[in-house]
Parts: sequence; C-alpha cells; structure tokens
Amino acid sequence: MSTPGIKVFAPASVSNLGCGFDILGLALERPGDEIIARMTDRKELRITEITGDKGQLPRNIHENTVTIAAAALLKHLGEEGRGIDFEIHKRMPFASGLGSSAASAVAGVVAMNELLRRPLEKRDLLPFAMQGEQHASQAWHADNVAPSLLGGIILVRDNASLDIHRIPAPRGLYLAILHPHILIQTADSRKRLPKNVALSDLVTQTGNLGGLIQGLYQSDFKLISRCLQDVVIEPHRSKDIPYYTEIREAALGTGALGCLISGSGPSMFALCDNSLLAEACGIAMKSVLKKHQLRCDLYISGIHAEGAMKY
Amino acid sequence: MSTPGIKVFAPASVSNLGCGFDILGLALERPGDEIIARMTDRKELRITEITGDKGQLPRNIHENTVTIAAAALLKHLGEEGRGIDFEIHKRMPFASGLGSSAASAVAGVVAMNELLRRPLEKRDLLPFAMQGEQHASQAWHADNVAPSLLGGIILVRDNASLDIHRIPAPRGLYLAILHPHILIQTADSRKRLPKNVALSDLVTQTGNLGGLIQGLYQSDFKLISRCLQDVVIEPHRSKDIPYYTEIREAALGTGALGCLISGSGPSMFALCDNSLLAEACGIAMKSVLKKHQLRCDLYISGIHAEGAMKY
Repeated sequence: MSTPGIKVFAPASVSNLGCGFDILGLALERPGDEIIARMTDRKELRITEITGDKGQLPRNIHENTVTIAAAALLKHLGEEGRGIDFEIHKRMPFASGLGSSAASAVAGVVAMNELLRRPLEKRDLLPFAMQGEQHASQAWHADNVAPSLLGGIILVRDNASLDIHRIPAPRGLYLAILHPHILIQTADSRKRLPKNVALSDLVTQTGNLGGLIQGLYQSDFKLISRCLQDVVIEPHRSKDIPYYTEIREAALGTGALGCLISGSGPSMFALCDNSLLAEACGIAMKSVLKKHQLRCDLYISGIHAEGAMKY
Repeated sequence: MSTPGIKVFAPASVSNLGCGFDILGLALERPGDEIIARMTDRKELRITEITGDKGQLPRNIHENTVTIAAAALLKHLGEEGRGIDFEIHKRMPFASGLGSSAASAVAGVVAMNELLRRPLEKRDLLPFAMQGEQHASQAWHADNVAPSLLGGIILVRDNASLDIHRIPAPRGLYLAILHPHILIQTADSRKRLPKNVALSDLVTQTGNLGGLIQGLYQSDFKLISRCLQDVVIEPHRSKDIPYYTEIREAALGTGALGCLISGSGPSMFALCDNSLLAEACGIAMKSVLKKHQLRCDLYISGIHAEGAMKY
C-alpha cells in the first residue's frame, strides 16, 4: 500500500562563477531532477525506478545520493522507521559540472520534508542534503546544494558551518549552458587543482569576487563582466575541456558578459544580460562543437528564484 | 607675492580590513593631513613649511609625496609653470599603517585642483594622487589613496586600472585605532609577505571577503564580525606587533566586531557598531600597552563620508 506520490523538482546549478571557487553558485530554471516520493507501509526506503541515467546511478539506497540525504533527514527527525518509495527521474546530465548530485540530494530531502508535512523550514534542510552531496563528491561544499535548495545566487561564506547568504540577482540575467559529451568526475577533477596560489592571484581573485558582488547589488553589468574571470582554478580545469578557448571566444564575441566553466566542468556557461542574447550565445557555443563533430546539450535558462519545490 | 591660501584636509585610512588585502580600505574622520597651498609668481612648487613630522619628511619637492602628486596633476593639465607654495601640517603619525603617505598625496592633488578652480572631478584626481603614493610605498595600490580621496569604504577591484567602487557603510560603524610607537616601513613590511597561499586559505579569504561586503550591504553586524579575519597576511604581520594577541583579545572581549592590523601596521583597529563601544574598546586596547609601558596614540573615529576636502 502506498499513498499518492508527491513530485519535487530540484534545479541544476552553476557553481564557482569564475572568481567564487567553492563559495558561489546559482540555481538554474532548467535542467533539473524530478523525484516522486510515496509513503508505504514497508518501513524502509526504496528506489523503485530511475530514469534518464542510462543505468549508471546506484539503485542501492546506501549508495544513492537521494536516499542518503533523505535517510539523514529521517534520522534527524527520529523517523527512521518510515517506509518511502522514490522514483528518480534524472532530467539532467550527471558528471557535467551542473550540480547533478546536489540536485538529487536536495530533491530527496525536499520530497521527504513534504511527505512529512514540512517539519523543517527549507533552509534547515541544507545539512541533510549536504550529506548526500558529500557522498557523491567526496567533499563538503555547499555551492551547488545551497542554490539548488534555496534558489537565486548564493554566497557560501563558510562551508563548514554552512554560513550561506543570498546575493541579489539583477533582472534579466540569463545563461546559456553548453554540456559537451565528455566525462569529468568531480572528485577526480578536484585532485588536479593547485595546492598553492600566488599572492598576486589572491589579490586579483578577491578583487573580482568583491566586484562581482558589488556588480550584482548595483545591477552594473559592465562591472559584472569585468569580474567574470578566474585566475586560480580555470587555467587548470580548462585543459580538460576540448575547444575551451573557441567556445569562450564564440560566447564573448556574441556579447556574453562572461563565459566560464561551470563547477568542475565540462559544462561551460555564458552569462548574459537578456534571454535573446543567451540564445544567440548558446547557438554560437554549440556551433563550435558541431564544427568539431563533438556532441553536446545546450540549455538556455534564467536564474531559478525559488529553488527546489513541490509541484 | 602669493594669493590667500586654501586649506585642505585629507583623512587617514584603514586598509585591508582583514580579508581585503590590497583591495579594501576606509576613510577615517580623524586623524588626517592638513595642507595649505598658495599660488605664487615664482613658477615653481615649493614646500615652505612642514610641521608635525619631527623633521623626518623630505623638504625636496621631488621627494615629498605632496609635491610629487601635485606636480603629476599639473603636468596632466599642461600647467607645469605654476608657482605654488605648500605648507604641510602632518596631523597624523607616519609609517603607522594609517595611510599617511596616501593622505599627503591626496591632500596635494585636492589642494592643487582647488587652487586651479577644479578643472577635474574629484574621482579623476585618483591617478595623480597614486603617483605620490607609489613613490612613498614603492607599490601601486589604491586601498589607502582611494578612500582618503573619496571617503567611505572603497573596494579596489583592480589596482592597475583603478577600478574602484564604493561599498555602503552601515550607520553606526565606529573604529578605535591604536598606534603603538614602533616603526614599520610599508615597503619593508611587504617584503616579508608570503609569495604563495594555500588554496584552502584562498577559499576562506574569498568567503570572508564576500561575506563582509554582503554584511555591509545588509547592515548585518554579526556577519561582518564573522568575516573580520585574515588567514593570509595577518599571521605574518602580527609577529611584528608587540602584544598583538593581548590587544586583540582586549578589543574583542569589550565587544568589538573585529580587531585587526590596519594596513601593514603597527596600528591596530577595532571595528564597533557604535561610538561608545569604540571608546571602551580603545581604552581596553590602550591599557594593554600601558601595562607593558609601551607608548601609543589612540583615535576614536567614524568613517569619513566625503574624503579629502577644502575647509
């Protein structure tokens, strides 16, 4: 026996945004994960179905991000005995740098919270979603989970204490997101990062981060554009992305405010000050890969204001 | 023959503010430099008097920050032939980490601009003041010059292009500034800085910088307090400051939002959310040095909203 299901959408997210390595992220209107969760009388969590993953995501509830996060929440609430069935509809690519594991973890806790009639405020679901994300990415960073859960542009002041803050998003910001069909695992990608950074690069990076936040507050698109660069991480990660420079030049040449790697890649995003421009940038970026006969997905999206939600 | 003089005040400044090395600074209401400038018919710049420097500042116009900056402005305006006499009244300590050379350079260009009936907007005086500052500090960074010139809290996104921005200052912010009577030269101090920074420290520093700007925009004093730390520079510079830890603990124990080194030191500042608390913090900080029989100056100051001005 099972109750009627509830359906939750959790958005994909773009983390880092160039100068905000591990501390900035934003939620996308699309793509994202969809989860249907139902109470059962089986006294256990189950994953009854996964679609859209080509059989690659774990069906074991102790391995899957959705159920790890959901179980962490149940434990916190003293509700470990609950029986819940999950259908997971992966409507976004994974290992793409778009926060797929974060979206799954967020969808899991939001669905669980809804089924239990919202014992917690949405903000307070964050630590439990983080436990799912940690399992997948082997690191404790909230720059995908927090925006997927709460929407908007999120600053993670401190990952350890989950000290997170919403930065205002100027009207009109739109993204083109290009996902080349090559595979980079987040955990592997992190191992290749530099252990040390030149002090002069720290000054550049902090200047750009401060300028980006200032630009977002002031809706100063020219300032935002100047700040959309990364002198620390991107020089390393860009080596893994075929035709990185061509893609970037295509987007910037079309009028994007900036074009950078999303999270650990291989997806790249172009940030634009309106949706038509984002579409044009997306076409220009995609045409680079088409020319080189590399397959890809393209998404055109605004910033998701709400984050994960029942619908 | 000389015209009646004009009198200019240029404020001291606190740079870095912990997490904003080389990119953040704020102007103080006190102390500061005072300059009196007069047109003459001698067709040259002269320094006719310097007070408050115990004979330590150069009288040679090619060596003094005030006249170097003023001459740079005159050259830009094609007015090299002008005769101007400067009286420099140093009403603040130098080599103190309070932007003394920046205040002098700013006072020089503002006085010159006033004498010439304001051919330039104040903002446009920045590059000429920078030339004076560069001579004194042997580096090109605007985190003292820009706040001394323009007032408020200033973010220098990029020093090379002088891409500067005003960050709002919440009402009530007040500082206690303790200047221990020991000498640290900025140029020497910079040589002792680390060349490299751990990536994890970069994440901490960028998180704090972002959080500080967010806290200033939101008037979130608790957030500001959490962000007032420096994991990169201060661990090195604090070694040069006697009783650093005791001073810091005295201020924090009294209720300061944060207590850090001002610029390259040896001055330390406590940032507080009201003026009475700043006074109490100042007394507590001063009593540490008194106990150890070390002389010091203490200033209690709000943030100077206007920056350098004729008065």
